[in-house]
Amino acid sequence: MSNFAVGIDIGGTTTKFGIVDREGKILEQNRIPTNAHETVQGFISDLHEKLSPMIERVGGPSNFAGIGVGAPNGNYYTGNIEHSANLKWKGIVPLASMLQEKFNMKVKLTNDANAAAAGEQQYGCAKGMKDFITITLGTGVGSGIFIDGKIVLGHDGFAGELGHTIIRPGGRLHKGTGIQGTLESYASATGVRETALEMLEQFPNVDSALRLIPADELTSEKVYDCAVQGDKIALEIFQFTGQLLGEALANFVMFSSPEAIVLFGGLTKAGDLILNPTQEAMEANLCQVFKNKVKLVFSNLKEADAAILGASALIWED
Amino acid sequence: MSNFAVGIDIGGTTTKFGIVDREGKILEQNRIPTNAHETVQGFISDLHEKLSPMIERVGGPSNFAGIGVGAPNGNYYTGNIEHSANLKWKGIVPLASMLQEKFNMKVKLTNDANAAAAGEQQYGCAKGMKDFITITLGTGVGSGIFIDGKIVLGHDGFAGELGHTIIRPGGRLHKGTGIQGTLESYASATGVRETALEMLEQFPNVDSALRLIPADELTSEKVYDCAVQGDKIALEIFQFTGQLLGEALANFVMFSSPEAIVLFGGLTKAGDLILNPTQEAMEANLCQVFKNKVKLVFSNLKEADAAILGASALIWED
Repeated sequence: MSNFAVGIDIGGTTTKFGIVDREGKILEQNRIPTNAHETVQGFISDLHEKLSPMIERVGGPSNFAGIGVGAPNGNYYTGNIEHSANLKWKGIVPLASMLQEKFNMKVKLTNDANAAAAGEQQYGCAKGMKDFITITLGTGVGSGIFIDGKIVLGHDGFAGELGHTIIRPGGRLHKGTGIQGTLESYASATGVRETALEMLEQFPNVDSALRLIPADELTSEKVYDCAVQGDKIALEIFQFTGQLLGEALANFVMFSSPEAIVLFGGLTKAGDLILNPTQEAMEANLCQVFKNKVKLVFSNLKEADAAILGASALIWED
Repeated sequence: MSNFAVGIDIGGTTTKFGIVDREGKILEQNRIPTNAHETVQGFISDLHEKLSPMIERVGGPSNFAGIGVGAPNGNYYTGNIEHSANLKWKGIVPLASMLQEKFNMKVKLTNDANAAAAGEQQYGCAKGMKDFITITLGTGVGSGIFIDGKIVLGHDGFAGELGHTIIRPGGRLHKGTGIQGTLESYASATGVRETALEMLEQFPNVDSALRLIPADELTSEKVYDCAVQGDKIALEIFQFTGQLLGEALANFVMFSSPEAIVLFGGLTKAGDLILNPTQEAMEANLCQVFKNKVKLVFSNLKEADAAILGASALIWED
C-alpha cells in the first residue's frame, strides 16, 4: 500500500522537496540549491543524499506511490525539462528518467503551474472537481487547467499558458515575449508596479502616498499597503488590475466552462481589493449561460507548502 | 456489427438527416421543417415517418451504432435541448430520450458546433487528431474543441463558446449578448458587413465599388467579390478581420495547444484573403514555444453535408 508521495519543486534558485501523505500533510521537508550545481548529475546526487534518509524514515520506497516533480518547462509527456531559461542545465534534460533510475520509483514531471493545479485538486479548494482553472498571480502569471479530471497538456505538452493570452491588443509590451497586451503584463506583481508608475504619471494632480516611494522601491506590496489606507490611486490600481483579470477570466470560462477558478500567489494577499473588481468584470463579460455559476476563490493552501504539495499530487492522479 | 449511424442536424427552420457509413459517405438524406411543428411530438412523428424507411433500406436498426444529433443549445450530458432561442419548443426538451424511445437506438446529442468538430475528427481534416479546435465563421462564430480525444464540454456541458470571447475590450457591441468587443462581432458574416459599413465611413476619400451597393444589400459575399477585383477597402476589410481572428486564435492556442485549428463556414470562401492575415496575426501573437507548430486549415468537408456528418460522428466516438 502506497501511503506517501515525494513532491519536488524545482525553482531557479532553490529546490524544495518533501514527504506528503494522501491528505496533503507534509511529514518532513528540506531544500537544496538548484543552479549552484553545475551539472544535473551533481544536483541529483545532492538531492539523493538529502531525500533518501527521509524516504527511509517513513518505511522506504515500498511505502511510496512515487515522486512528483514541478519544474520550469517540464513536459509531462516526455518527463524532460526542455530548454528552460531559468535553469543552468541547457537543452533537453531527461530528469524524470534520471530520477526514476536513482530512486527506483515512478516519477511524474510537469511544469510548476500544472503542479499547482494538481495540488488544488488533490488537497485544496478544487478537491474532487473535474473542471477548474488555477491562476497564479506572482512575479508572472501562471496557469494550470483541469478538464474532465485531467490536466490539459495539449498535443505537445505545453498547453495552459494563459498568462500570455492577449487582453489589451496593442497594449503594454512584455519584455520576455515581445508580445503586447498580455495578461501577465498587467495581472502580475510586475504588472501592478507598472500600472502604479503609469497612473502616478497619468494623474499628476491626485495626492498619493505612492509618490513618496522611490520608483525603484515601488512594489505591489507597497501599493497594497497604501490601498488599505484608502489611497485613491492605489485603490484605482487594484480596480484596474481586477478589471483586466476579470475580462481574461471571462474568456477562459467561455473556453472550458470550469466549475471554479482558483487564484493563488502574491497578488491574492490584496484580498477583496483584487477579488471584487475581478469577479465583477468576469461576470459582466460572460454570456448568459455562464453567469453566476463559476466559483472564483483564493487558494486555501499555505503558500510555503503549495509547490511541494502540487508536485506530490501528480502521483495520486489516475 | 454496426455499419451505419444516423446524423440529425436540427436548425431553426429545417432539420436535415441522413444515413452515414463509417467512412463519412452519406447513403441517403432528407429534410423536414423544424419550427413548422408546433410541438416536439409532432416533429418526432414526422421525423420517424421519413427516417424509418431509410433505416430499413440499409438493414434496419441492428445495422446501426445509433443516432447522433446536433441541435442549438443541445447538452451532451443530459441529452436535452435547453432554452433554445432559435426553436419554438421552449424550456427543457429531453430530445435524446424521446428519440431513443421512438427509434430504439442509442442517441447522443450536442450543440451544432461540437458536432461539427466531431465530424472533422471522424471524417475531415482533423482525422485521428486528439487536440484541435474547429471555428465556424458563419452568420455567427461557433466553436468545438477537442482535448485529449474528447469534446470539451465543461462542468455544465456548455463549454466552447469561443465566439463570445473578448478580443477588443470596449469594442463593437454584440446585440445578442450585450457584451462589447467579442470575436463574433468581427469575424462573422455579420461582422464583416459591419466592418465594411464602418470603413466606408472612416475612409470617405478612398474609391471603392462597395459604395455602389445599397447599405442594406451589403454582405460579406459582396465584400469578397470586390476584394478579388482588387478593391482597396474590401481587401482592407479582410485584412482587419483576419488580424482580429488571428489574435483570438493565438489566445486559444495558448489555452489548449492544439495540433490544428480547422476553419469552416461562409467566410472561408474568401480563401487566402482571410487565411493569410489570420495566420500572420496568430503567429505574431504566440509566445515562442507555440510558434510555427499549429496547422491552420480550412475544413475539407462539403458544407452541405457537414452538419449531418458531424451529428453522425458523435456515435462513433468512444
